Amino acid sequence: MTLHIVQIIIEWSAILCCAMAGIFEARERDMDFVGAFVIASACAFGGGTVRDLLLDRHPLFWLQKPEYVIVVFLITFFSMFITLRKSPGLDLLVNAVDALALGFFSFLGTFYALKYGTNLFVAPLIGVVTGVFGGIIRDVFFAEVPRIYRKGGTTLYTVCSFTGCCVYLALRHLEASGTVGFIACTLVTFLFRMAAVRFNWSLRV
Amino acid sequence: MTLHIVQIIIEWSAILCCAMAGIFEARERDMDFVGAFVIASACAFGGGTVRDLLLDRHPLFWLQKPEYVIVVFLITFFSMFITLRKSPGLDLLVNAVDALALGFFSFLGTFYALKYGTNLFVAPLIGVVTGVFGGIIRDVFFAEVPRIYRKGGTTLYTVCSFTGCCVYLALRHLEASGTVGFIACTLVTFLFRMAAVRFNWSLRV
Amino acid sequence: MTLHIVQIIIEWSAILCCAMAGIFEARERDMDFVGAFVIASACAFGGGTVRDLLLDRHPLFWLQKPEYVIVVFLITFFSMFITLRKSPGLDLLVNAVDALALGFFSFLGTFYALKYGTNLFVAPLIGVVTGVFGGIIRDVFFAEVPRIYRKGGTTLYTVCSFTGCCVYLALRHLEASGTVGFIACTLVTFLFRMAAVRFNWSLRV
Repeated sequence: MTLHIVQIIIEWSAILCCAMAGIFEARERDMDFVGAFVIASACAFGGGTVRDLLLDRHPLFWLQKPEYVIVVFLITFFSMFITLRKSPGLDLLVNAVDALALGFFSFLGTFYALKYGTNLFVAPLIGVVTGVFGGIIRDVFFAEVPRIYRKGGTTLYTVCSFTGCCVYLALRHLEASGTVGFIACTLVTFLFRMAAVRFNWSLRV
Repeated sequence: MTLHIVQIIIEWSAILCCAMAGIFEARERDMDFVGAFVIASACAFGGGTVRDLLLDRHPLFWLQKPEYVIVVFLITFFSMFITLRKSPGLDLLVNAVDALALGFFSFLGTFYALKYGTNLFVAPLIGVVTGVFGGIIRDVFFAEVPRIYRKGGTTLYTVCSFTGCCVYLALRHLEASGTVGFIACTLVTFLFRMAAVRFNWSLRV
Repeated sequence: MTLHIVQIIIEWSAILCCAMAGIFEARERDMDFVGAFVIASACAFGGGTVRDLLLDRHPLFWLQKPEYVIVVFLITFFSMFITLRKSPGLDLLVNAVDALALGFFSFLGTFYALKYGTNLFVAPLIGVVTGVFGGIIRDVFFAEVPRIYRKGGTTLYTVCSFTGCCVYLALRHLEASGTVGFIACTLVTFLFRMAAVRFNWSLRV
């Protein structure tokens, strides 16, 4: 019961964070309302949709809950009346929101993968796919190389998500409660990602 | 029974319209036969495939009916022997064919979504996805930003499809017959789209 | 039983060939380890994943067998310590590996499609999709027009795969054993493809 409520809260947070990050992107490119809604939806629902299709988990999470779609719609709508000025503070905020969403979705992906009986090696991959595919679909829509795999890009993104998933798996193996696992997974992903952005870390190999 | 026949006619019309619009595109880019067939198939089967995957509707509509694939193959083949000259008349024809296909697929998507038990808020989204994804996959294959979300592009495309789907939902709520709903949905989508092209409408927000 | 072992050998060969071709590509573009692993996975698992989703074949082949993912991971890892010098010999090797993978996957796609009850017209299409989609996803990730449909590109790729699938279907109709069908399909695809590369064949229409 408690876990169920926690899970709903996580899913809402992940979707809201992703949708907001998507709207920021779309606004920066001066897209109109429909374009912004499509990008926000791709970011918010893309990762989870790919996860559900891979796991054969039907009906898809957003088909069951129209609230998700309606709320993303409303957020996109109201965001059209806000003017944003590009600033370091805004960049930091967008990055933080995005890193949080990455943590939430990585946890959810690993959690559902285990629930659907995938083994311990594949589960974190599903977590990573859930975390990063929203952004990949967004970049494909922008006809750009997914920025997380671009040279000089943010490659560590995937590594942050993977680390978070592994932390959750480890805690689960130690029989920690789901809530503890969730908090650890999200926190590790979030902090790792913010540190990677702040110190400009990148892989050497 | 009658509805079943109507449905088959609609599906055929949608596929033929989409395939033809795809072939026009491919020819304009001077692709060879295989390229044209791939683009025609992406346009004709892309939207419906995404719809069927999202709704978990198996086997996919074109897996069951090889006629669809064979006819698209033949159309592509014979079109290779026709030379097209770019003209305003041809542009209008391509737009009209494309707008018709948008109407057909929007209806089919909403119809199947309701049949598979999705709620009233999500059903028109499935309709829109069915209508627009063929074109999105085509544009991804061309490595371009989907033109329907490009700035100064044809953003209203999505809105036309959405309006048609909502008209169908409204008529359905008023207990109109399926055929009436289909005609109204297709007509509204088609006319709205043609007007948007003719008067160069675009969203202000 | 024998067929089962043959099938496992084919699947391993296909995945290893594809992963290696993907790693070559990624290395040429100077991607780091994570980028190379993503491209290798896209090439190795992309075609089969699309096939499994279209056929509603669950769990996906790489969800069941973590060995696949682990081996691709290890190959990518060790390849980071090898320096490659661009040379005609290397080009030939990459092309040969890629042509082999195309043959393997075309066979597997057609084989599974028939096993899941699709008809004779659609089965080779599934074979082609299995063979070519890894490369398409790779090119979409590189934000390029899939090279197999690019003008002056390698259009015959699809035709080679299709020919191999049809040879398998013909032999199957003549009640040849699965192993014979597999060898013929792979050999025809491989030789046709290598000849097309060597003599620079392309479609005229």
